[in-house]
Amino acid sequence: MITAKRIVLASRPTGAPKPENFRVEDAELPEADEGEVTVRILYLSLDPYMRGRMSEAKSYAAPVPVDGVMEGETIGEVLKSRHNDFAPGDIVRGRTGWVTHAVIRGDRLRHVETHGAPLTTAIGVLGMPGFTAWSGLKFIGKPKPGETVAVAAASGPVGSMVGQLAKLWGARAVGIAGGADKCAFVKDELGFHAAIDHRSENLPSELKTVCADGIDVYFENVGGHVWDAVLPLLNTYGRVPVCGLVAHYNGTSTSESDRLPETMSAILRQSLLVRGFIQTEFAPDHFDEFLSDIGPRVASGEIKYREDIVDGFENAPEAFISMLTGGNFGKLIVQLS
Amino acid sequence: MITAKRIVLASRPTGAPKPENFRVEDAELPEADEGEVTVRILYLSLDPYMRGRMSEAKSYAAPVPVDGVMEGETIGEVLKSRHNDFAPGDIVRGRTGWVTHAVIRGDRLRHVETHGAPLTTAIGVLGMPGFTAWSGLKFIGKPKPGETVAVAAASGPVGSMVGQLAKLWGARAVGIAGGADKCAFVKDELGFHAAIDHRSENLPSELKTVCADGIDVYFENVGGHVWDAVLPLLNTYGRVPVCGLVAHYNGTSTSESDRLPETMSAILRQSLLVRGFIQTEFAPDHFDEFLSDIGPRVASGEIKYREDIVDGFENAPEAFISMLTGGNFGKLIVQLS
Repeated sequence: MITAKRIVLASRPTGAPKPENFRVEDAELPEADEGEVTVRILYLSLDPYMRGRMSEAKSYAAPVPVDGVMEGETIGEVLKSRHNDFAPGDIVRGRTGWVTHAVIRGDRLRHVETHGAPLTTAIGVLGMPGFTAWSGLKFIGKPKPGETVAVAAASGPVGSMVGQLAKLWGARAVGIAGGADKCAFVKDELGFHAAIDHRSENLPSELKTVCADGIDVYFENVGGHVWDAVLPLLNTYGRVPVCGLVAHYNGTSTSESDRLPETMSAILRQSLLVRGFIQTEFAPDHFDEFLSDIGPRVASGEIKYREDIVDGFENAPEAFISMLTGGNFGKLIVQLS
Repeated sequence: MITAKRIVLASRPTGAPKPENFRVEDAELPEADEGEVTVRILYLSLDPYMRGRMSEAKSYAAPVPVDGVMEGETIGEVLKSRHNDFAPGDIVRGRTGWVTHAVIRGDRLRHVETHGAPLTTAIGVLGMPGFTAWSGLKFIGKPKPGETVAVAAASGPVGSMVGQLAKLWGARAVGIAGGADKCAFVKDELGFHAAIDHRSENLPSELKTVCADGIDVYFENVGGHVWDAVLPLLNTYGRVPVCGLVAHYNGTSTSESDRLPETMSAILRQSLLVRGFIQTEFAPDHFDEFLSDIGPRVASGEIKYREDIVDGFENAPEAFISMLTGGNFGKLIVQLS
């Protein structure tokens, strides 16, 4: 019998989550039934959307119940299998939640395929975050050669992919990130055409300077004061795929009040397209296409990525809390000891 | 020599326009040059977008200069022609502005074609407002059979067409209008499935009741507190073509403050598509298609419309001012004596 650890939602946060909103528990792992697989988790992905699952507020997915296991995607190694598609030693990914071990139906697991890139990319640049960037840009943003694509959290797993895809497809990539180190990474390592620090007092004018022809696609994953700076620069027929609003998740946005009429007026004036999306809309039909397109480019180093790997399962809550205010640098992944 | 009258912008309004923002002037009409046509105006269209032209604020079109003639579309009779396509007696439409007579290049005029419907429809249900409804619904709203389409200003030229097209295409039409008379017209005459009075204190709950399955398409031409009531009812993959924001034109919206995060959160949560548009985006390729599709239906009475015809050129400013707060009932047209 294996004793697993799991991290549950101890209480719902008000504002920014605190360590006491989480609780680490031990739990006896049941034996796998027919069709199930026992998995030892190697890596846990931490992502901003999880903040939404901690609240009861209306969202696109049901909240985690209090005392329920925190949701999340993981990479693991199969220990035992009673499903024909999996054998001990197989490396799989699945939505097991924040656990060290899981017994899960085999039809809810997928073999990890990274085209030669490291395993962790399967929950990062070649997983949900990378696919969010790829599908949102391909099906909603649709940048044309020569157009300007702007994205915030540009050193993160979504933003870094958005900018590199924009370049690959012939557009200009402008990244917005927090602090000099992240901006240097975005410009020098990822090769964006420009990177702007969102903490600068002159964000609106600095952004305007590097977007001299305006912004054609703004890939929205942040909201808040970055959106305020982007809005006046959007060109006619601009597209704004919205995949996240991290600045608002803790209810601590610094956006100016009463911006709605201004936002809707800009949508009208510039014939803007604003479109929310969750990557699950596109994944069933297009994930394999994404992986075969982007996987080899990641493996070869043509597309770059950065991961922020935290060691130790029990450090997940602290790392998650920090991520919500930009404390991470790259895709945040917890490596289980 | 003809002495024409014209109405110019005397000064820019702050908030709601006042009569003193307009001035009626006499002007000697020049002789038509080669390629030009002299037109006596029969009907002047008054439309909410003209409020935007009175301000210097950024818009999708240049403002009318102070002392400049107010912009607008008219229907007129050709008096003299030095253009091969037009002869005296022809009925034409063009953007002559608020004038009683005009000398205008023939290539800027079009013959009026209404498929047997009255002349005035060429600047109403079969003109820019009708085409705005048709193109925004066809290319952006895309209602599917059984879906719910909601529209405000539902007794007006855009809203009344939106709801009737929604019905024609198999969707449910819910109209929002100001006052019992307009609501009765929308429901009983136009045949919408339901009509709600936006002046009701219970607008949100009443709207929810008649949109039991939510709203799939909200055709936005008003903004303000109607948008506040619609937003929580929008379904996943909802579409919001935005063609106007009348509630905000005078800077007197009653929308609650700080709705931006809520709006963007709804866009994200429900994977909404919000798209501004000006009908000129679609007119070059699709106006003829619209006219041949809808013209016969208007002429036969299958598609209904209502006009609010004001008699006398010099009454245009007062009628326009009243329209901005819903004082008209149907497409507002000035008939020149």
